Amino acid sequence: MHRSSSAGLLQALRHQSPSVHRITYSVAANFIANVLLAIGAAPATVDIVGEADPFAPIAGGLLVNLGTPTPAQRAASQEAVFAANEAGAPWVLDPVAIGALPVRTALAEHLTHRSPFPVSGNASEVSALPGVDGGGKGVEATGSTDAAVSVAIALVEELGTAAAVSGPEDLITDGEQALRVANGDVLLTKVTGGGCAVAALIAAFASVRGEASLLEAVAATHVVYGIAAEQAVAQTSGPGYFAVRLRDALHAVSTTDVIVAERVRTETIPFADGRFFASS
Amino acid sequence: MHRSSSAGLLQALRHQSPSVHRITYSVAANFIANVLLAIGAAPATVDIVGEADPFAPIAGGLLVNLGTPTPAQRAASQEAVFAANEAGAPWVLDPVAIGALPVRTALAEHLTHRSPFPVSGNASEVSALPGVDGGGKGVEATGSTDAAVSVAIALVEELGTAAAVSGPEDLITDGEQALRVANGDVLLTKVTGGGCAVAALIAAFASVRGEASLLEAVAATHVVYGIAAEQAVAQTSGPGYFAVRLRDALHAVSTTDVIVAERVRTETIPFADGRFFASS
Amino acid sequence: MHRSSSAGLLQALRHQSPSVHRITYSVAANFIANVLLAIGAAPATVDIVGEADPFAPIAGGLLVNLGTPTPAQRAASQEAVFAANEAGAPWVLDPVAIGALPVRTALAEHLTHRSPFPVSGNASEVSALPGVDGGGKGVEATGSTDAAVSVAIALVEELGTAAAVSGPEDLITDGEQALRVANGDVLLTKVTGGGCAVAALIAAFASVRGEASLLEAVAATHVVYGIAAEQAVAQTSGPGYFAVRLRDALHAVSTTDVIVAERVRTETIPFADGRFFASS
Repeated sequence: MHRSSSAGLLQALRHQSPSVHRITYSVAANFIANVLLAIGAAPATVDIVGEADPFAPIAGGLLVNLGTPTPAQRAASQEAVFAANEAGAPWVLDPVAIGALPVRTALAEHLTHRSPFPVSGNASEVSALPGVDGGGKGVEATGSTDAAVSVAIALVEELGTAAAVSGPEDLITDGEQALRVANGDVLLTKVTGGGCAVAALIAAFASVRGEASLLEAVAATHVVYGIAAEQAVAQTSGPGYFAVRLRDALHAVSTTDVIVAERVRTETIPFADGRFFASS
Repeated sequence: MHRSSSAGLLQALRHQSPSVHRITYSVAANFIANVLLAIGAAPATVDIVGEADPFAPIAGGLLVNLGTPTPAQRAASQEAVFAANEAGAPWVLDPVAIGALPVRTALAEHLTHRSPFPVSGNASEVSALPGVDGGGKGVEATGSTDAAVSVAIALVEELGTAAAVSGPEDLITDGEQALRVANGDVLLTKVTGGGCAVAALIAAFASVRGEASLLEAVAATHVVYGIAAEQAVAQTSGPGYFAVRLRDALHAVSTTDVIVAERVRTETIPFADGRFFASS
Repeated sequence: MHRSSSAGLLQALRHQSPSVHRITYSVAANFIANVLLAIGAAPATVDIVGEADPFAPIAGGLLVNLGTPTPAQRAASQEAVFAANEAGAPWVLDPVAIGALPVRTALAEHLTHRSPFPVSGNASEVSALPGVDGGGKGVEATGSTDAAVSVAIALVEELGTAAAVSGPEDLITDGEQALRVANGDVLLTKVTGGGCAVAALIAAFASVRGEASLLEAVAATHVVYGIAAEQAVAQTSGPGYFAVRLRDALHAVSTTDVIVAERVRTETIPFADGRFFASS
């Protein structure tokens, strides 16, 4: 992976301003739309049956976020995913709170048969996807990088897609390479949608990746979002002002910032015998 | 009531980080979720039929807010309330704009048969609940503390629950004691959800109250929210920046701030002959 | 048009604090509600079948925004428009993204038969309304003031109502007079709902216009919103903080600010031979 790829992808995103088709829940919809606008993408919430299909091929990428999906949104998400696959557009699955809640878990099972590309969630959510059990490690409890590695491998093997498993450190893999990104700030957990915005940004970066790999697009997302979070937290310790300044930082972050940060943030994880191993 | 109870409840809330199950309307959902995150709770919007039931017993408390409830939310709210009662979890009813609007008024009537615990609304809303007429005092017109006292008594007598009647001064009672809390700032009325957030915070405080009474939990909510509002308004006279700093203040407010403020803010209202009387 | 009319309308709005009935989509609902509160209006989202009808005559004005309308909202919008017309209350149509998306386009066709009053959208959206084709000028591509003039004329002729066509410059006409308003800042396009808030404010200004013309009410909206945007952008170049300060500026903007700004912002467009012509 070229050290400059995240910076290059940021430039491409700002140049192309891709339309990101979103099906997401009402609580965080405003914040996620504003994050996409701030980075330079063009968010479009189209979650109505009969509109998701015609819009999906127009959009650069699609985000399906499973936080409190209404009946109409559940139907629209299936319509949108089908159309995105037909059009060859990348679509990202954010399986919010699946496992514990049955309606969205069933929907996630249904959607994962349609090749999400990629999946972004925490270890607990990812391990609740069909066929992904993380080796029975009880990922909910530990939240460790080891558990994330285990879950990500299982996901990649089961679905043949890339995975971004979020946590104190984020773990990203496409089954051939794996990266660990030291990401963001704990204040992101005090802003509703602070985590979900990552999946939306992945859809934006994936839609402009050109020759870059999906892994590079996902890594660029985590690097850029992490920088912006750190720039924002440097100005405040309160979650309200942090959320405001995070949008400003996403708008202003420079490619130089990204090149410098990528060098110190991302770490390739050794891979052996069909398994990744977290370095100490 | 111990003077330190509000501070103790704030400590408990931050220590336990209770999950607050919310069924609320889309306009204020983001603000209310961020207020809960800022104070240290874990908001979860679960308003889908089939998920409200399994989630309610997992949550520490439940908020049902009647602002523009969709058909799916109306069904989910009944499911959630039933499950919360089964689990013994406190649930708070915020009867937004009932009286004037028929669909939510009918839903409020239905839900109040299931022992809300407690009710939080303004005098007009509370007086529109079944069996609560405030003695025909025309509370909509006056908005006075006297009218609030009258309405709160009727509510407590009818439903056997606690009541928080908001207004220029807030009136809180459980039928045995009554408190008046000098609360917040007029800028709260210039932020959408500024009032509704109180009911969400009551659900959070009620879920961690332990040996404290429900009255103490409701009083703690009003005291803490009022302090945060005053700290925020000290930094701005504009509603946009106020809403941002309110979240920061809820995140930062100290137990010492709460102890000091509680002493000057709350006043016990004399009670005689089955009636509370507002002191002059 | 009296030069002081916008200032007078702002004073009337703050004095009367009109209730603005909104049917709008979840993404921008919070921002739009806060914009209305900041300027001094009283927003009320009432988008449920069975409540839209009784509420419409209580409200001063109605906004129907077609961004991702749910099935329930589509039904409620027809109910609300019918009731608003019965009550003689102004209702504003914001035909978000019609043309490209079939469900909302069909709804827009249906609603425009009920005399919106006025329409507020960009040239692409307005040209997709039934009977309005902008002379086949391909307004999507150009976005020029000339195209906006052409579309606005077609709209006024077809529907007999006023039009506000937004763009780098806004074009406002009622078929007798036409104004061009140099409006706002490009940062408005980086805030979700930044454009849609205009239509909500038109509903507020139209509901308090008294003897003023509808054209004057629409012009006042664009002038006041434009001033606030410029005051906000003077404090920041980031979209997050801009959105915060925009609300503060709407709250604080003085009638003197408005009188001064109106003088330099608005320009009457010459009218001849049944056509408006943009001056150079």
